[in-house]
Amino acid sequence: MPYSIKNTEFMLEALSLARLAASNGDVPVGCVIVRDGKIISVGYNRRQSDNNAVAHAETEAITSACRFLGGWRLPRCTMFVTLEPCPMCAGAIINARIPEVYIAAHDFKSGAFGSVLNLCNYPLNHRPKIHYGLLENESVVLLRSFFLKLRNN
Amino acid sequence: MPYSIKNTEFMLEALSLARLAASNGDVPVGCVIVRDGKIISVGYNRRQSDNNAVAHAETEAITSACRFLGGWRLPRCTMFVTLEPCPMCAGAIINARIPEVYIAAHDFKSGAFGSVLNLCNYPLNHRPKIHYGLLENESVVLLRSFFLKLRNN
Repeated sequence: MPYSIKNTEFMLEALSLARLAASNGDVPVGCVIVRDGKIISVGYNRRQSDNNAVAHAETEAITSACRFLGGWRLPRCTMFVTLEPCPMCAGAIINARIPEVYIAAHDFKSGAFGSVLNLCNYPLNHRPKIHYGLLENESVVLLRSFFLKLRNN
Repeated sequence: MPYSIKNTEFMLEALSLARLAASNGDVPVGCVIVRDGKIISVGYNRRQSDNNAVAHAETEAITSACRFLGGWRLPRCTMFVTLEPCPMCAGAIINARIPEVYIAAHDFKSGAFGSVLNLCNYPLNHRPKIHYGLLENESVVLLRSFFLKLRNN
């Protein structure tokens, strides 16, 4: 059920993390990884605040989930992320074999699950199931307000 | 000059790091990042030994180079890597705006700079210059011997 109450709660948590990223001066993107109905890891974009090109919400959450589960594969896990993953993060999701991903908003500049390219269309060693649109408006409003403030400063 | 003595030395260093990965039970991939003729960071595949899907040679070297330079952009940097980057790592190279990458061997299973797909063919916000073939045979022999041992055990 893509839009169950539980899934909406997980995406709301990801949106809270996105707000945390924005409060540190980073583009608001947040992410949670869920297994057996419970959040096992979280991440938010820290590229700017950590000075690290790799420190996106998804890579942070995947690293933390791998630590939690004690392995580099994340079976039976679902990711909830507020913005479509870039090629690096879409690749990390495939590398970690995450079966299912809920994405709030499209990223028409660098999205790699359908917007600029779609990694699911290539013969790589895993193909996650992608769901779009859960709390899309909330994520779009958050992103727009961040970039509006950035331009005004 | 793609095959200068200096560049060969950098790739030899990446191959040493690949051997280090193999000695830990990880697929032998090594990577160095160079700026102004000096190595500023190194990385080797630690997916298995660190239990982390994100811990590839390239992401490790990029994180370390960002720390060294104090920013998420890596201008005037050149990466030397023993195997063609996967989508995650090719995306990380683009995210870090690395201008130039030397790759020893192609990865026909998950290479994202020409073998399975080519991220340079998409309108993303950066396009690195890619050079293939420097010490290709050395890298191929190292990889083959690793997988041969793995099958025999």
